[in-house]
Amino acid sequence: MSTDPRAYARQNLDRFRRELYDFLRIPSVSAKTEHAGDMAAAAEWLRARLQEAGLAAEIRETPGHPIVLGKWTGAGSDAPTVLIYGHYDVQPPEPLEEWHAPPFEPTERDGRVYARGAADDKGQLYMHVKALEAHLSATGRLPVNVIVLAEGEEEVGSVNLVPFVERHAAELACDYVVISDSNMFDEGMPSILFSLRGLAYLEVHVTGPRGDLHSGQFGGTVANPANALAKILASLHDAQGRVAVEGFYDDVVEWDAETRERIRKLPFDEERYRRELGVDALAGEEGWNTLERLWIRPTCDVNGLLSGYTGEGAKTVLPARAMAKVSFRLVPDQTPERIAELVRAHVERVAPEGVRVEVRELHGGRPWRANLEGALVHAASEALQEAFGVPAVLQGEGGSIPIVVDFEEKLGASALLVGFALPGCNLHAPNEWFPLEHFDRGIEALVALYKKLGTA
Amino acid sequence: MSTDPRAYARQNLDRFRRELYDFLRIPSVSAKTEHAGDMAAAAEWLRARLQEAGLAAEIRETPGHPIVLGKWTGAGSDAPTVLIYGHYDVQPPEPLEEWHAPPFEPTERDGRVYARGAADDKGQLYMHVKALEAHLSATGRLPVNVIVLAEGEEEVGSVNLVPFVERHAAELACDYVVISDSNMFDEGMPSILFSLRGLAYLEVHVTGPRGDLHSGQFGGTVANPANALAKILASLHDAQGRVAVEGFYDDVVEWDAETRERIRKLPFDEERYRRELGVDALAGEEGWNTLERLWIRPTCDVNGLLSGYTGEGAKTVLPARAMAKVSFRLVPDQTPERIAELVRAHVERVAPEGVRVEVRELHGGRPWRANLEGALVHAASEALQEAFGVPAVLQGEGGSIPIVVDFEEKLGASALLVGFALPGCNLHAPNEWFPLEHFDRGIEALVALYKKLGTA
Repeated sequence: MSTDPRAYARQNLDRFRRELYDFLRIPSVSAKTEHAGDMAAAAEWLRARLQEAGLAAEIRETPGHPIVLGKWTGAGSDAPTVLIYGHYDVQPPEPLEEWHAPPFEPTERDGRVYARGAADDKGQLYMHVKALEAHLSATGRLPVNVIVLAEGEEEVGSVNLVPFVERHAAELACDYVVISDSNMFDEGMPSILFSLRGLAYLEVHVTGPRGDLHSGQFGGTVANPANALAKILASLHDAQGRVAVEGFYDDVVEWDAETRERIRKLPFDEERYRRELGVDALAGEEGWNTLERLWIRPTCDVNGLLSGYTGEGAKTVLPARAMAKVSFRLVPDQTPERIAELVRAHVERVAPEGVRVEVRELHGGRPWRANLEGALVHAASEALQEAFGVPAVLQGEGGSIPIVVDFEEKLGASALLVGFALPGCNLHAPNEWFPLEHFDRGIEALVALYKKLGTA
Repeated sequence: MSTDPRAYARQNLDRFRRELYDFLRIPSVSAKTEHAGDMAAAAEWLRARLQEAGLAAEIRETPGHPIVLGKWTGAGSDAPTVLIYGHYDVQPPEPLEEWHAPPFEPTERDGRVYARGAADDKGQLYMHVKALEAHLSATGRLPVNVIVLAEGEEEVGSVNLVPFVERHAAELACDYVVISDSNMFDEGMPSILFSLRGLAYLEVHVTGPRGDLHSGQFGGTVANPANALAKILASLHDAQGRVAVEGFYDDVVEWDAETRERIRKLPFDEERYRRELGVDALAGEEGWNTLERLWIRPTCDVNGLLSGYTGEGAKTVLPARAMAKVSFRLVPDQTPERIAELVRAHVERVAPEGVRVEVRELHGGRPWRANLEGALVHAASEALQEAFGVPAVLQGEGGSIPIVVDFEEKLGASALLVGFALPGCNLHAPNEWFPLEHFDRGIEALVALYKKLGTA
């Protein structure tokens, strides 16, 4: 047996993959009650693997699906503590008919493993478990104290996670939080996230007459809630693609020239991106390129529209109400609370006479910005370069992971988001896959990361 | 037995009502196949009553529900021929739980009969049958030649009626078409329609990316079809409530000052109208009052909106497509074909880059304007004044009855629209009712109308 964790990992990659496939065979779909047994099985499977690797592992119940907690505290109080966060639940696999192979039967093809959860997030979570095993098996110890926290409700809103973290803040206290649930910039091009966008998700309800009316017998005499909603939604952008809500940009911290320069130098192919999306032209806020629009600029997107008659044919209804789901991606230092307030004021101001409007807040999450100066990002950059042979790039992420800010605040830690999937991995879609080369190289990178953090 | 048709009618009003209630007991819901037997039964019931009244009556099959045809041609070739059009089918009664009494068990209360079809249109159609009977029973003849045409598909789009009228244009040739399927201006205030609005009903489809996208991972970089649809719909009106489609008003014939003056003098209570609709304020095109907006001005109403996620909660989808149903009420001499063309050009012009738009025409009907100078309206005015004791008012109708223009064109006739229901009669809604006083007075008015047309 090797006493070098990296060599150990290389020698055991085949077994690591086979174990991952066992993990992927458990249909741990958190959204469906019929999978409650599978959820429990997946949690227990993961707990057992952590235990085997050498951690003290246990299942912790929540009002929803359980949390798996693994700990190793032998590095001593001088060594930093790293909390590794991931999730063992997966998205529902539907529509099943679009899968080329069964979603819960991992299939290798062209250097990829296809299965639900391969990328999001079982594959990436399990890389950490195996990196820990490599250290413990090869050297009998870890360079850092470790807490593994794997939840089973990430795909259904993580409703029990923040209360759990709050209640157990002392137990979970750590210096660093490491999360692998995101993408590399491209194949073979490792990356570290420098930002996450936040989210303010609202519903706009417009109500007019007491009930639906006949559009002939009443049309032209009362404000139509669907027309009014269209007017309200259209008013949310100006002609330059900026969000036209007063005060919307007040809290946006301009990024430094270096960051913009770094983004603009990335080898990003806008034409390929456009072609893959199947649109005639890309669009967005004037004065920013696609990656900037995606990573460092806030947005306003309508997510849903419903009003009146939507079936086949011509029903002449003047609808009594209309509804839109509208969400805003936020950038530092915007907050969902303030943005909801501004949007509410805007909607009330532009709503035409004769209708009533209501803005409901459904969901919010703060944006996040990495501390690029500390030991954490430094160690990760070196570890990724060693494992992949090229420097890691800094990239943003257009989506939101609200728990990151909560972890940092409630545990007094810095977070590192280092992912190994790819933009085309079909997360939340049929035929999800994960690149096997990234699985192998990524485990090596994580082995190196923990080592560097222990000696930083 | 009286030899005066009016006296005959007065003596038989109780029986007329009882017969109507038998008609109303037949659940002739044209939209539901389970009522096919009831449709046939209603047609046969009506045919038998026409036969009993003294007309030659028959059932004429169509690819859908049958047409009931009754004829009396004994007035000679010098006398005019009147075609009476109505329909024996009714709207579905649902939601049943909102009815205070069973929809197909006529119930008298406060001078009203409650039942599905009481106003639309069995009650009004049957008034004509009884007016004809009054003449035939009292005098052995009718003052005019008569064709009664009752269809069974008015509530499902009258798809087989125009082909039937075209195919049998010679058989149905007439001088006048009389239709009672509309409202009086108010209780005890009879009216004659001077106009009907037309209709252009369209669907606007906006498509963007190949499939639904994650609004975080892509938001801000591609045009969002739902936002684009809102922009397109908002552009359809200007700040004065006018339709902002280039050329939209080109074919609108301005009404003469007399007509506007007449409308403005009608005792219409805007405040009561507002209160009944349950809105804070009425709204519409600047420079016109509510009745003008309803009767003589064109409109643009969104009838339905659908895009993205519309269920509970916050799904962060950037939808691949968005759809709106949009209809325009038209006034003379706008045509649905030309309006569809103009709207299509407008939508294509204002659609933002990055989405594709398609405008589909679902349904159209031309607006209609009565000839107020001829013998028909003159006779009707006199007849209504005699029966109700007050002068009939001229009123418009915001809804559309496309068949009216077809009748006039294909049969070379003038149409008279004289209705006896009231704006609050719950047409197409639970607890439909018809005022019994209007039933009685209306039959007298129709008796007088036929007499006057025979001597005009």
